[in-house]
Amino acid sequence: MKREYLSMELLRYLLYDVHGIDRLTDYPRFSHVGGREEIDLLLQSARDIADREMFPFFKEMDMHPVEHRDGHVRTHPQLKRIFRAVADAGWFTATTELERGGTQLPYSVFSSAQLIFEAANNSAQGYLGVSTGALDLIASFGNEVLRATYMPPMMEGRWQGTMALTEPQAGSSLSDIRTSATPMPDGSYHITGQKIFISAGEHEACENFIHLTLARIEGAPAGTKGISLFVVPKFLPGGERSLAYNHVQCVADFQKMGQRGYATTHLIFGEQGATKAFLVGEPHKGLSYMFQMMNAARIVVGQTAAAVASAAYHYALQYATERPQGRPIGGKDPLQEPVPIIRHADVRRMLLQQKCFVEGALSLVAECLKWFDLEKVLEGDEKRKAWLLLELLTPIVKTWPSEEGLRSVSNALQVFGGYGFTMDFDAQQYYRDIRIMSIYEGTTGIQSIDLLGRKLTMDGGRAAQLLGAEISAEISRASADTLLAPYAAATARAVQTWQKALLHLQALAGGGDTERYLADANLFMELSGLVAIAWQWLKMGNRSQAALRAGDLSDSSAAFHRGRLASLRFYFKYELPRTSALSESLMHGDAPTLHTEVDAFR
Amino acid sequence: MKREYLSMELLRYLLYDVHGIDRLTDYPRFSHVGGREEIDLLLQSARDIADREMFPFFKEMDMHPVEHRDGHVRTHPQLKRIFRAVADAGWFTATTELERGGTQLPYSVFSSAQLIFEAANNSAQGYLGVSTGALDLIASFGNEVLRATYMPPMMEGRWQGTMALTEPQAGSSLSDIRTSATPMPDGSYHITGQKIFISAGEHEACENFIHLTLARIEGAPAGTKGISLFVVPKFLPGGERSLAYNHVQCVADFQKMGQRGYATTHLIFGEQGATKAFLVGEPHKGLSYMFQMMNAARIVVGQTAAAVASAAYHYALQYATERPQGRPIGGKDPLQEPVPIIRHADVRRMLLQQKCFVEGALSLVAECLKWFDLEKVLEGDEKRKAWLLLELLTPIVKTWPSEEGLRSVSNALQVFGGYGFTMDFDAQQYYRDIRIMSIYEGTTGIQSIDLLGRKLTMDGGRAAQLLGAEISAEISRASADTLLAPYAAATARAVQTWQKALLHLQALAGGGDTERYLADANLFMELSGLVAIAWQWLKMGNRSQAALRAGDLSDSSAAFHRGRLASLRFYFKYELPRTSALSESLMHGDAPTLHTEVDAFR
Repeated sequence: MKREYLSMELLRYLLYDVHGIDRLTDYPRFSHVGGREEIDLLLQSARDIADREMFPFFKEMDMHPVEHRDGHVRTHPQLKRIFRAVADAGWFTATTELERGGTQLPYSVFSSAQLIFEAANNSAQGYLGVSTGALDLIASFGNEVLRATYMPPMMEGRWQGTMALTEPQAGSSLSDIRTSATPMPDGSYHITGQKIFISAGEHEACENFIHLTLARIEGAPAGTKGISLFVVPKFLPGGERSLAYNHVQCVADFQKMGQRGYATTHLIFGEQGATKAFLVGEPHKGLSYMFQMMNAARIVVGQTAAAVASAAYHYALQYATERPQGRPIGGKDPLQEPVPIIRHADVRRMLLQQKCFVEGALSLVAECLKWFDLEKVLEGDEKRKAWLLLELLTPIVKTWPSEEGLRSVSNALQVFGGYGFTMDFDAQQYYRDIRIMSIYEGTTGIQSIDLLGRKLTMDGGRAAQLLGAEISAEISRASADTLLAPYAAATARAVQTWQKALLHLQALAGGGDTERYLADANLFMELSGLVAIAWQWLKMGNRSQAALRAGDLSDSSAAFHRGRLASLRFYFKYELPRTSALSESLMHGDAPTLHTEVDAFR
Repeated sequence: MKREYLSMELLRYLLYDVHGIDRLTDYPRFSHVGGREEIDLLLQSARDIADREMFPFFKEMDMHPVEHRDGHVRTHPQLKRIFRAVADAGWFTATTELERGGTQLPYSVFSSAQLIFEAANNSAQGYLGVSTGALDLIASFGNEVLRATYMPPMMEGRWQGTMALTEPQAGSSLSDIRTSATPMPDGSYHITGQKIFISAGEHEACENFIHLTLARIEGAPAGTKGISLFVVPKFLPGGERSLAYNHVQCVADFQKMGQRGYATTHLIFGEQGATKAFLVGEPHKGLSYMFQMMNAARIVVGQTAAAVASAAYHYALQYATERPQGRPIGGKDPLQEPVPIIRHADVRRMLLQQKCFVEGALSLVAECLKWFDLEKVLEGDEKRKAWLLLELLTPIVKTWPSEEGLRSVSNALQVFGGYGFTMDFDAQQYYRDIRIMSIYEGTTGIQSIDLLGRKLTMDGGRAAQLLGAEISAEISRASADTLLAPYAAATARAVQTWQKALLHLQALAGGGDTERYLADANLFMELSGLVAIAWQWLKMGNRSQAALRAGDLSDSSAAFHRGRLASLRFYFKYELPRTSALSESLMHGDAPTLHTEVDAFR
């Protein structure tokens, strides 16, 4: 039996039936795309690449990891073929405007192709994802010279774009970055400094590396207000496509626990000779540019976590269906043949947890992708609404899949028993790969403070009101359905719990205790995730109940929809009750994380 | 600064102050040991070995893992020195009776030495742990010939003992094992079959391998009632210490995600020639013998999980104290120096979670070790009480640290940010190592069914009553203390929640729905763990409050006791509230894990 890693049936259900992504083509910006059938063809072409070029190398790229040897970053030879296939299919130009030679797809469609790639081989997809992100930055904020020089080879997949933010001494604290840029008479800059953890910073599948780099122009204000964005190419384009070395040294590749096929480099600028850099946009605005791209990057991280969990789930499901072991409770006759382990309630619990997680997380991802695209095509108040919802949901869609995905993939491993811990099986690779997601693009701690400290206070809390209205609408719809009504009521209670906890925290902030207000932001994030996913389950429940009521389904389609309802029931029995515990913790009067003396930690 | 992996101050506090392990020496069986000072010296000698021979090789044994090459299992050269040091210090003979040349220590003292070794290097300790377990099996159930032949070289650390249970087709389902034993005229047996996942089944530090093997004698009844226990040596002892090959082939070493320094072998008996085996005890009683050893083995697994988390915690704590990054909430001036990350509330939350987990888990381990030893020295009803409590607590002490330890070690990794995911730091190794604990010696699913289906029904539920009385006594003590009274009340509520959930489940069983009764055993296990750990926190709270009230403490001791109370406060704010969520889930009327059709899983 061929191994599955992502259900295309589920993907289509979420994109079209639940979130109406195909209706984006009603807007002029996307009307050239066609409709549902054309999107289907695009996604199928991505699936073909994933099946042929990516998934078969998932394990190999882990067993033969990236390494820095003889001064070069050595990558798996398949990476070149992957770049070629993805470029030939046009995926590097998917989000670029038509007038610049791109295909101007909805981001949701492009990202669904990325999802397929991530589920097939999350290391390989990393290279493509970061390159398109860098391309979008240049397209959005670069001047015409930068666009004309750098976009075409990146769109052809010949040049790799990267994001160079982190420095050894600064970590998450971007206000402390030290990489420094000195203005030159020709309008360019000379840049010196070090960047670490630069994904795809060098490898063997591209000819050039274009680092979108945060640095300070000499004399810039301290902190985040003095950070500018630069294009720093490894090789400087000259006339006639000749390339001159720009003294961008890649001195190391970090060896990692997971994503071992994905290069994570250490770069040094301007040490062996001058490194030229080109300012993107205006001085000192680098962080705001970066953050406009960050929403997409953060959705991608959450999506990747869900993709990895999807692949692990299907792998565990197949094993559970094929592996005979033990007998049902109450039928322990050792002379009977053992049953497939999917017959055991505890194995089914582990499988349903994964299934429910993958579906819920991917639905929230699709929700965010929808607002991402709508924000681009709507106007006025509606545009602002889309932007606010996207801003509010982004830290959640980054965090929920990254944190809960650990449990999901751990359950996948557990289904294999002792085999799951061995390198002969891939469960352990999914378990290692997914662990980075809660660190990438802002850790869970950072996301949680962003949610509580920034997103919930924007526009006087309007984002939360808008989200509340969206959830209420779904609750109303579900209340009218006999089967869904109890789940609608449970969601309404969860929303109340969430609001009560928020009021409690805001009272602390109102009293001036900002530290206390934010100390449990992580718990509030988890609570917010639970509410957001309950909302998604009502959406899916409403959609699947409507389909089942219509009654003209094939047996297979009916089973599919019943499968969604099974996950929904699982969620409301096993997951949503955690809101009670989180609310108790959040409302608890004690604050041991603030008041414990350092000496007491020993 | 020297890196810490286990606080000896904490260990002494738990052993003596909280659980009174030193009072075991009041019983004749242990009176030769001396008292607290002598135990201290023994533990310090273990610590010296761990510091010198084990901890410095923790990472090396992972970077140069065990491998099967040229027909042999190749292990790190340090393993020989570790065997020597441990044997020289007498740890292989620690639990053997005086009359057999052992030192007859309380098991709790021996296991505390193991704890030190596990925290220093859990791969290395594996070899020692399994060998002493096999030794105890022969000592307890072997005849005089087996004892005289096999015990002395095992006690010298020259021969490795192993436990050979698992077979490829059977996994956790021991009733399906097929390894077969044919009686020979001389009273021995010829054995044929395969065993997988045999820890320490072959390596370079010992001369011979003694496999305590489960097999069926030809014609034995089907299922678990037809399983016998055998000694199967790799080399047959002859006269004058000569050893003849017994056709025990080690055909592979499983490559694993973690514990890569610990050999996990695949053995084949009787394929190349006759493999002789020697019956231990009576025919068909093998599983009951094995299970009498299983309590110790299961405590050890839980203890190892706590040990790994302890090492990860101290590693993260040191990093958090030394790594400057970011500024306090409300003091974001970028011209100020960054603060050590332990100043951030979210980092403190992650550290306190680990600290609280390690202390709680180790306290429960010490509780179980106490009953393990008391069961050996008490008589009549008191002995039965000790046995029942141990039986009830064993699945919990195996599972709680194994499951919660994942979160603890994951938090340790998260404290390091991106560095935590790199091989340059050891956080990822702890994260990989600990993942096996919920699979070893009966998965969490198996333990949960054991707790709910067997341990809570033994003697008409008397074990639960006994545990309830123990907890009540601690609640009473704590209620008399102003600071602890609210935590005593919270524990009492948690016990009620637990009882209510149990009654609810028992009603299902009473109605004949055994499958439903056991379907959520995993959740009931988690609930039981939360209650058991709350009990331990009251114990520690009572002890530390008494110490602080006495008032003659050094500043350092006072800070130590305040540190325990900080963990206690953390537990009651952040962990115990989960009982509410679990109880909601357990009492929920729906049973989606039982009623979902297989076709709906796709």
